[in-house]
Amino acid sequence: MYTTPEMIFQSEGQFVRWLQTLSAGKSPQVRLGIGDDAALVRVGRDRDLILTADLSIEGVHFTADLHPARSVGHRALARSLSDIAAMGGVPRFALVSVAFPRALSRRWIEEFYRGILDLAACFRVQVIGGDTSIVRRTVMIDVTLAGEVLRGRGLLRSGARPGDQIFVSGSLGCSAQGLEILKSQARARKSGRHGTQAGPESSALKSHLYPEPRCELGRWLQNSGLPSAMMDISDGLSTDLIRLCEASGVGATVLADYIPGPPGKLPERALELALNGGEDYELLFTVPKQRLTKVPALHRGLPLRCIGQIRRAHEVLLVRNDGSRSPLASAGYDHFSK
Amino acid sequence: MYTTPEMIFQSEGQFVRWLQTLSAGKSPQVRLGIGDDAALVRVGRDRDLILTADLSIEGVHFTADLHPARSVGHRALARSLSDIAAMGGVPRFALVSVAFPRALSRRWIEEFYRGILDLAACFRVQVIGGDTSIVRRTVMIDVTLAGEVLRGRGLLRSGARPGDQIFVSGSLGCSAQGLEILKSQARARKSGRHGTQAGPESSALKSHLYPEPRCELGRWLQNSGLPSAMMDISDGLSTDLIRLCEASGVGATVLADYIPGPPGKLPERALELALNGGEDYELLFTVPKQRLTKVPALHRGLPLRCIGQIRRAHEVLLVRNDGSRSPLASAGYDHFSK
Repeated sequence: MYTTPEMIFQSEGQFVRWLQTLSAGKSPQVRLGIGDDAALVRVGRDRDLILTADLSIEGVHFTADLHPARSVGHRALARSLSDIAAMGGVPRFALVSVAFPRALSRRWIEEFYRGILDLAACFRVQVIGGDTSIVRRTVMIDVTLAGEVLRGRGLLRSGARPGDQIFVSGSLGCSAQGLEILKSQARARKSGRHGTQAGPESSALKSHLYPEPRCELGRWLQNSGLPSAMMDISDGLSTDLIRLCEASGVGATVLADYIPGPPGKLPERALELALNGGEDYELLFTVPKQRLTKVPALHRGLPLRCIGQIRRAHEVLLVRNDGSRSPLASAGYDHFSK
Repeated sequence: MYTTPEMIFQSEGQFVRWLQTLSAGKSPQVRLGIGDDAALVRVGRDRDLILTADLSIEGVHFTADLHPARSVGHRALARSLSDIAAMGGVPRFALVSVAFPRALSRRWIEEFYRGILDLAACFRVQVIGGDTSIVRRTVMIDVTLAGEVLRGRGLLRSGARPGDQIFVSGSLGCSAQGLEILKSQARARKSGRHGTQAGPESSALKSHLYPEPRCELGRWLQNSGLPSAMMDISDGLSTDLIRLCEASGVGATVLADYIPGPPGKLPERALELALNGGEDYELLFTVPKQRLTKVPALHRGLPLRCIGQIRRAHEVLLVRNDGSRSPLASAGYDHFSK
């Protein structure tokens, strides 16, 4: 299944063996991994299979000057892990397809796979296949992830009902803040100045370069039976909350003051980053009123905050602390307008 | 899961709805298709899951001037279908990830998905997700296919044993012949001449533009219990037979005269195309001697031809009809040297 970047590795055999070594430690579920026509895996008898694919493209999802290779790999897999988390599933197997430009260094490729495989190991995900090709220019990655969830128990976007309270995990806008810092560091490097990495800065950088998918929280929520709907916040709350409402055929009211933005920013800027920043990979979920008391304020140190309520009317409104209400505009991260 | 080519479609919603309409007719196995964070499917209790991913990149696997959009879609899915066929599995669900250049026409995209979805329908495969993005230049596609096979019954490359006979389905080199014709037609168009499409020519063109994955044959062989090893011929017999032998820890002798090349070519040229052409998507399989009498010469009109024998010695030898023997050189289609 793996065709070879022969210009970088001596042969397909060498590349496949290298990848097999890196991704060693086969789980008993994997009947056959990298090296044959396809991979063979076993899923549980009482499980549904979750499948998701996510592209990561140079110049769109990352840039050569801002993102180290290890971060590119980490982020490529994190996007798919977050999709599995959003359904309350357990991630299991990944296929990694990559188009490498001829000019790319072997070191870059190694660091890239390290980023993928270290994160995969954290979540006990096995990389079982994929494809590679050599291209002229742009690095392009497609990660497919297969996960499992108890039959019929996957959490969908479409289950929110009027009266349900809306929750988000962690803080929003930190990844966007990290990207801003990366860009200003790059400008400083160009002009010969040196940036500093203060506390909140390095935390924001980590949020952007090495985001932590909320798989454990997703599983816990799925197990708890609390949420009526769930999704991950990958394109910004403003965009993703509207998607959840559309899928559920409802509207919502969110309170600006309750939305947890990145620390150390003026309130208006923090709100803007939290609403429209994207790539936070936190979870957005709704809980019916009768189960509200069972939602903890913290889950393993991660805050779960109520930010508003689902409404019957199809509009999604943002209420500011001066009492003003305005329709929430879908202005999240958009690969096609940037 | 689907992010939007907004420059081509008005919005993500429009694109997703369009794709949902095109890929309508949800099977009961699909709990949740395009539109949520991930897709949810159910696999049989006594089945193993087969997963494969294949890249199709403009300038590597196809070119804008030679391959119509419908063929690009057809071929992108055919590559993965052939991988599932090679294991004797039944293809079920596809994820299609595509990076579209901004300049691409909506008509191209529609024809591309038609190519994918028409072939998917032939094999009762459901397109349940994927990802899209807008890029500056190159079209890049990654198709992930999930299939099923009876537990522990998937056919691998690694099962060939000394004494087993080597078989191929159909004819080899036809796709490469089709590509030659396409190139000469393109040259003729440029110089104002008009090409003709004679019988063998149009058949070769079809082999190249719209190859037919051997899923039915693969399943039949898996069911029959005849093969000891199997794989598909995607990179040319010379390359793929060596891979099968390496995976099985054996060697082979193949008889040049027995290798079914494309019709209407001089023997030497036909042999070269058959050995090194690639993209034929026929099946290569080995059968132990005691089961040989059960292999039919034709399966549903498709010839199954014995071309040689597996040997203990690790070399792969080609025997010509003058009796000369030479090591078979892996000279199949190689994306990285073209």
